[in-house]
Amino acid sequence: MVVVAEILDFFLDTRKHTESLCRPLAVEDYVVQPISDVSPPKWHLGHTTWFFEEFILAKYSPDYQVFDPDFSFVFNSYYETLGKRVLRTDRGNLSRPTVKKVIEYRTYVTEQMTTLLEKSSSKELYDLVEIGIHHEKQHQELLLTDIKFILGNNPLLPIYSANYSENSPCQISHQWLSVSEGVYTIGHQSDSFCYDNELGKHKVYLNPYQISNLLVTNGDYLQFMDAGGYQDFRFWHADGWDWLTQNQLKAPLYWHYIDHQWYQYTLNGLQPLASKAYVTHISYYEAYAYAQWKECRLPTEFEWEVAEKQFEWGHRWEWTESAYLPYPHYKKAVGALGEYNGKFMVNQKVLRGSSIATPPKHARATYRNFFGPSARWQFTGIRLAK
Amino acid sequence: MVVVAEILDFFLDTRKHTESLCRPLAVEDYVVQPISDVSPPKWHLGHTTWFFEEFILAKYSPDYQVFDPDFSFVFNSYYETLGKRVLRTDRGNLSRPTVKKVIEYRTYVTEQMTTLLEKSSSKELYDLVEIGIHHEKQHQELLLTDIKFILGNNPLLPIYSANYSENSPCQISHQWLSVSEGVYTIGHQSDSFCYDNELGKHKVYLNPYQISNLLVTNGDYLQFMDAGGYQDFRFWHADGWDWLTQNQLKAPLYWHYIDHQWYQYTLNGLQPLASKAYVTHISYYEAYAYAQWKECRLPTEFEWEVAEKQFEWGHRWEWTESAYLPYPHYKKAVGALGEYNGKFMVNQKVLRGSSIATPPKHARATYRNFFGPSARWQFTGIRLAK
Amino acid sequence: MVVVAEILDFFLDTRKHTESLCRPLAVEDYVVQPISDVSPPKWHLGHTTWFFEEFILAKYSPDYQVFDPDFSFVFNSYYETLGKRVLRTDRGNLSRPTVKKVIEYRTYVTEQMTTLLEKSSSKELYDLVEIGIHHEKQHQELLLTDIKFILGNNPLLPIYSANYSENSPCQISHQWLSVSEGVYTIGHQSDSFCYDNELGKHKVYLNPYQISNLLVTNGDYLQFMDAGGYQDFRFWHADGWDWLTQNQLKAPLYWHYIDHQWYQYTLNGLQPLASKAYVTHISYYEAYAYAQWKECRLPTEFEWEVAEKQFEWGHRWEWTESAYLPYPHYKKAVGALGEYNGKFMVNQKVLRGSSIATPPKHARATYRNFFGPSARWQFTGIRLAK
Amino acid sequence: MVVVAEILDFFLDTRKHTESLCRPLAVEDYVVQPISDVSPPKWHLGHTTWFFEEFILAKYSPDYQVFDPDFSFVFNSYYETLGKRVLRTDRGNLSRPTVKKVIEYRTYVTEQMTTLLEKSSSKELYDLVEIGIHHEKQHQELLLTDIKFILGNNPLLPIYSANYSENSPCQISHQWLSVSEGVYTIGHQSDSFCYDNELGKHKVYLNPYQISNLLVTNGDYLQFMDAGGYQDFRFWHADGWDWLTQNQLKAPLYWHYIDHQWYQYTLNGLQPLASKAYVTHISYYEAYAYAQWKECRLPTEFEWEVAEKQFEWGHRWEWTESAYLPYPHYKKAVGALGEYNGKFMVNQKVLRGSSIATPPKHARATYRNFFGPSARWQFTGIRLAK
Repeated sequence: MVVVAEILDFFLDTRKHTESLCRPLAVEDYVVQPISDVSPPKWHLGHTTWFFEEFILAKYSPDYQVFDPDFSFVFNSYYETLGKRVLRTDRGNLSRPTVKKVIEYRTYVTEQMTTLLEKSSSKELYDLVEIGIHHEKQHQELLLTDIKFILGNNPLLPIYSANYSENSPCQISHQWLSVSEGVYTIGHQSDSFCYDNELGKHKVYLNPYQISNLLVTNGDYLQFMDAGGYQDFRFWHADGWDWLTQNQLKAPLYWHYIDHQWYQYTLNGLQPLASKAYVTHISYYEAYAYAQWKECRLPTEFEWEVAEKQFEWGHRWEWTESAYLPYPHYKKAVGALGEYNGKFMVNQKVLRGSSIATPPKHARATYRNFFGPSARWQFTGIRLAK
Repeated sequence: MVVVAEILDFFLDTRKHTESLCRPLAVEDYVVQPISDVSPPKWHLGHTTWFFEEFILAKYSPDYQVFDPDFSFVFNSYYETLGKRVLRTDRGNLSRPTVKKVIEYRTYVTEQMTTLLEKSSSKELYDLVEIGIHHEKQHQELLLTDIKFILGNNPLLPIYSANYSENSPCQISHQWLSVSEGVYTIGHQSDSFCYDNELGKHKVYLNPYQISNLLVTNGDYLQFMDAGGYQDFRFWHADGWDWLTQNQLKAPLYWHYIDHQWYQYTLNGLQPLASKAYVTHISYYEAYAYAQWKECRLPTEFEWEVAEKQFEWGHRWEWTESAYLPYPHYKKAVGALGEYNGKFMVNQKVLRGSSIATPPKHARATYRNFFGPSARWQFTGIRLAK
Repeated sequence: MVVVAEILDFFLDTRKHTESLCRPLAVEDYVVQPISDVSPPKWHLGHTTWFFEEFILAKYSPDYQVFDPDFSFVFNSYYETLGKRVLRTDRGNLSRPTVKKVIEYRTYVTEQMTTLLEKSSSKELYDLVEIGIHHEKQHQELLLTDIKFILGNNPLLPIYSANYSENSPCQISHQWLSVSEGVYTIGHQSDSFCYDNELGKHKVYLNPYQISNLLVTNGDYLQFMDAGGYQDFRFWHADGWDWLTQNQLKAPLYWHYIDHQWYQYTLNGLQPLASKAYVTHISYYEAYAYAQWKECRLPTEFEWEVAEKQFEWGHRWEWTESAYLPYPHYKKAVGALGEYNGKFMVNQKVLRGSSIATPPKHARATYRNFFGPSARWQFTGIRLAK
Repeated sequence: MVVVAEILDFFLDTRKHTESLCRPLAVEDYVVQPISDVSPPKWHLGHTTWFFEEFILAKYSPDYQVFDPDFSFVFNSYYETLGKRVLRTDRGNLSRPTVKKVIEYRTYVTEQMTTLLEKSSSKELYDLVEIGIHHEKQHQELLLTDIKFILGNNPLLPIYSANYSENSPCQISHQWLSVSEGVYTIGHQSDSFCYDNELGKHKVYLNPYQISNLLVTNGDYLQFMDAGGYQDFRFWHADGWDWLTQNQLKAPLYWHYIDHQWYQYTLNGLQPLASKAYVTHISYYEAYAYAQWKECRLPTEFEWEVAEKQFEWGHRWEWTESAYLPYPHYKKAVGALGEYNGKFMVNQKVLRGSSIATPPKHARATYRNFFGPSARWQFTGIRLAK
C-alpha cells in the first residue's frame, strides 16, 4: 500500500520534472501552436495543474480558493462534463495568462496539494492523485514532443538540449523471434497503476507468428525510399496514398535533404542522418507501407504484448496493426474521468512500447498508446512481424 | 465444379438484374451525384461493364476491340494500376457518355463475354468471371442505395418502387442469446465463392457474451432520441460528437419531422415512421451511442459470425465494433485485383449480414462489408451485445 | 410605344430562342453542374419560366393556377424576398423535375402569358414583361456558356454546333484611337429598355487617353505566355497570383496542349488554336497581367463607353478596370426586383460589349455586365488602353 | 529641402515610437497571431527593421554586415522580388527569434542607419529613408490594432493602456454639408511625402451631393441593430449577407452583450458602450448596410477628398464606396518597391481619414487606405452621404 511520504514524493518529483523539461525554453517558446496536434508548453503546465485543482482540490480540500476562475475555461482540454473551454485549435492564440502567471498557478496548486496530502490518508484520494500524476506524466511526453515540433518547425532550427540521444546506433543483430499458436492472456494483471483501457484482462488466441527483435533503422528506411517507396501506390492504403499525395510527402518528419545529403532535426539540433539509428517520426501509413514493401506486416498489439519479454523496447513507440478498441470487459469510469480514454476508441491505431520522451515510471508492457494513422510528431517507429 | 451453362446463366442473370434495377429511373436520374459517396447510376452500369472488358475480354478474347478507348478513363473506379481516371467527386459532372451509349456498351460487352464463355472452359477464366459477377452484385447494392439517395435527396421525394418493404414490423420478441467462452474458427471455409478478405481461416478466443436475437427498431431508437440522445455527449465518441455537431444532426438519414410527426423516406416514397420496423440509415457513431445509452455494446464481427446461426439476419447491414483489418493469413492478389480489398483496411468498421438491397446469391455469413464510421446511406442497423 | 402584337411576338420569339439553344443537347446534358458558377440547362429553362409565373402571372392573372408549388423552391435563384430555395451549389444534384416536366412547365406558362397579354394593355404589365424578356435573354447567354462548360469539361469533348465561329480571324490592322480630355455624359439616355444599373445618367471627367481599335488575339496572348507571363509575379495582382498558383494555371480556359501544339475547345469541338482570332475565356486577372506586360492598361468602363462608336465591338465581353459600383443617381427598385442588380455591387469588375453568345436585341453600348475577377467561363476578351 | 538633422530626428523618433507602443506588452503578447490578418508584434518590430536593412543598408552602406541572414526569410512580408518568405499565416507559429533578439536587431539597424545618415546627404537615400519611415508609421497603426485584437480576443480581456480615448462623446450637432457639381482636382499636390497611389493628380466630375459633418455613433448604430438590421437581407450586399450568415454576426467586433447590456472592449479594457461615441470596428459590409437602412449611401473617395476641409476627421478610418483602383496617371515604382501598392488594387475598398491609432505626421487628406470589405479589426467608422 502506498504511504503518504511515497505519494507526496512521487507527486512532487513529477511536478518538478515537468518544470525541468521547460528549463531550456525561451518565454516565447511556451506560447505557440504550429499545428493543432501540438499544444503550447504553457498550456500543458496549466492543464496538468488544473487537473489537480478540478478533480481533487475542489472536492477534497474544504475552503479551497480557486486560483483564478477563468483558468478552467482556458485549461480544460476536452472534458465536456466540465463546461465550455477554449477550442483546441485556439490554444496558440492566447498570450495570457503569461508564463509567469501559470508558474504561480502551478506553485499555488502544488502547495495546496502538499497540504492536503499531508493531512489526509484517504484511499480514494490517493487513487485520484495517482491518476493526476500519471496524467501529468503523459503530458510530459507530449510536452517534449510538442517542444520538438515548435523548435523543429522554426526556420532557425534551434537546439533544445544535448541530453537526448536520438541517434544512438542499434548494436545488436537481427533475428526473427517465433511464438507458437495458442491462447494467451492480455491486459494489466498486477495491483500497480494502469489506465482503465488496459483493464479487462482477457484471453486471445494467437496464430503462430514471428516478430523482429529489432526496430527498423534509418538505413533500412532509406532503402525503401531509394526503391521508390513514396512513389509506388501498391504499398499504401488508399487513405495513406491520398494523405501522401495531398501533403506531397517524400520522407519522415524532420528529415531535410541538403546538398545531396539527408539530415534529421533532433532535440540537439540538425544532425546528419545516422543510418544505424532507428527510424522515427513516421506515420502508421508509412510504417504499413514499409512493411508491405518488405513483404512483412506490423504485429497486432496482442502479438506485441505476448512477445515483449523476448526483445528490447523503449526506444520508440511502435505502431501496431491493431485498431484502438475496448477490451472485452472494459468499463469506463463514472463522471468526467470516464472521458479519459473511452471516447477516443475509434479511428485510432494502438502503439506499444515507450520512447526517449516517456518519463520515468510511466512505461509498462500493457500500456496502450494511440494516435490517428497520419500522426508523425511522436517518437514512432517500426517493428516487423510475419 | 461450375459448368459453362451455369456460369453463363449466372453471368446473364446478373447483367439483367442490374438493368432491371434501373427500370424505374428517368434518364436524368442516371446522371447526378449529390454527395461524393454516391455514384451516378450510369457510372455503375459502365463501371461493372468495364470490369469485364478490362480484366477479362482484353486478356482472354483475342482480337477483342475495345468499345471506346476513352471509357477506361471514365469508368475506372480506383485501380491505380490501370492508369488515370475521372476523380470520384467528378462523376456527377459528366453528362456524356449518354445513358443510351452506356447501354450499348453493356450490350456489346455482354455479347462478347457470352461468345467467350461459350468457347472457353478455362478454370482461370471462370474464376475471374465469378469475381466479375460478384463485383457486379456488390455494385447492385450500391446502385440501389445510391438511387435511394438521389431520389431521397430531391425536394420532390419521388417514388422508386413499391417492391421493397422497408417498414415490415418485427414480429418476434426479444431474447438475449448466450455464447460460452472458447476458441472458435473464423473465416470462409467452403469451396464456394468468397472475397479474399474472408480467407485466412483462423481461430479466435471469445470471452462469454450475449447477443440480441433482434435488431433495434424505430420505436426503440425514438426512445433514445426522446431521452436526449443527440444532445448528450456522454454517449458519443469524441469524433462522433464532432461529426454530429458539425452536421447538426438530430435523427437518422431520411427522417423528416413534419407537423409534429416523424416520417421516413423509403423507396416507396415518404411514409409515416413505422415504430416496429428496424431502424436503418444510421452511422456507426449513432449505433455506438445508442448502445452506450442502453448500457450495452455492439458485437465484434467474430461474436457475430459465431452466433449467426442462432438469429435471423438479412434485413439490414449490422455495424460491428470491429475495425476492418486483415485476417491473420490474409494474402492480397497480384496485380490490379490486389487493390480490391486490402488497401481499404484502415479507418473503416466491419458490417455483417446483408440488407433488402443485397442481390440474390450474394449474402453469406462470412461476408465482411465495411464503411467509414459516419456513412449512413447504406441500409445499416443495430444489433446489441453485452 | 409598344403595342400588344409587338410585345407578344417579342416574348414568343424569346421563349422559342431559349428552347432552340437546347436543341443539340442530350437529356443528360440538361442536368449537370460541373462548377458552382455553371447552372444545369434545365434549371435555366425552369428559372426563366418561374420568373414570369412569380412576378407576372401570380399578380396579374386572376385565378392563375401555379403549375407546381414545389417549383418555386427549385427555380428561385437568389431572391431572398421570395422565400427559401435550393442552394446554388446543389442545382446539379437534382434529377427531378425531369426535362420533359420542365418543358411542360414552360409551355404552360408561355400559354398563360399569351392569354394574359392578349387581354391586357397595362403599361405596368408591359414593363414587367419587358424585364422578364430581357431576364430570359440574359439567361440565354449564360445557358450557352454553361453548355460550353458542361461539354468542354467532359473528357469526350463533344461538339455542340457548327454555327458559332469562335475562331474567325481579325481582319483589320491595329490603331490607337485618341480621346481628348473633358466632361462626358455616361449612362442610358433613350426610352428603350435598359437595366436599372445603367440609369443615373451623369457626367464624368476623362483625362486624355488612347484605346485600341482591336481586341488582343490568341497570337498576341501566346507571346505573353512564351515570355513567361504565367511565371512572373510582377505582372499580376497579389490576389491574381495566389489564384494562379493555387489553381496551377498556365493558359486560358479550354486551351489544351497536345503533342507540342495548342488546341482550343470550341462549341464546334476541339480545334487547333487560331492565332489571329481574339483570345477569349480569360479572367480579369489574366487580362490585367497581359496589359501590364504590354505596359498598357485596361480602359475604364467610362473610357469604353465614350469611345465605343470608334471601334467594332460584339465579339467578346471586354474586361474593364472599373469596379462594379452604383451610378451617382442609382435607385434600386422596390420589392424582389430590387435584388436584380444592386446587391451585387461589390467585389465585381465591369465588362462592356457583348459576345457571340449574346442573343439578338440584347446588346447595347451602355450595358454593364459584371463578374468576379477570376471568372473565365464567359466569352471574355481584352482591349488595351493607355 | 530636408536636412540631415531633420531626417535623422524623424527617423529616430519613429523608431522610438514603435518601441514605446510595445511597452505595455508581456513577452508572450509579441508572439501570437489569432487571425491571419493580425501579425505578431515582434514580426512588426522585425519587418520594419528588415525594410531598412534590405532597401537601404544593403545598398548604401559599404561593408554592411547583415545582422542574421535568416531574418530576411522571417521578416519579408510580401516582396516576391526578394525571395522566399514565411507564409503570412505562419507568422504566429514562430517562437524564435525571441523578442530580445529582435530588439537587438532593431538596435543594430538603427545604429547602422544613424551612422549612414550622418555621413551621407544623397537625395536618393533621403527619399528611401522617408519611405522607410512612413512604412514604419503605417506598421505602427497595424501594430496597435493587432495588439488590440490579440488582447481583445483573449478570454481574460487584459487592459493595454488608459491613454486612448475610444469612447469620447461626439459634441457637435449633425448637419448635411452641400457640395455643388463641377470638376475638381484629386490627388496629392505638394512636395511633401506621399505614397505612389496618391499621385497622378487628375480631375474628376462630381455631381451635386451632401455629406454628413459627423460620423455615425454607437447610439445610431444600436438603432439599426434594434430595428433588425442584421436580420434583414434587403440592406446587405449578397456577399455581405453570406459573410454575416456564415460568421453568425450580430454586432460590431469587440461588442459583448452581458446581462442585458452592451459592452465594448477597448484598449483600456471592457467598458460599457458609450452611445455618443462614434461606432467603430465595423466592416464595409456593415457600413453599407447601415447606410442603406438610413436611405443614404457612403461617399466616394473623391466626394470625401473634395469636402474634407468642411468637416472634422481623424477619429476613425472612414469607409468609402470607392474601389481601390489606380489613379489615371499612376506609375508603379521599379523593383521591389513597385510591389508596395499596385498589386493590391483589386477586391479592396478605399478608406479615408485616419484614426486614434494613426501615428503623428502620418495622416493627410489625400491618403488612400484600403482593406477588403469584411475587415473589422481596424478603427473603421461610417460617414454618410446622399
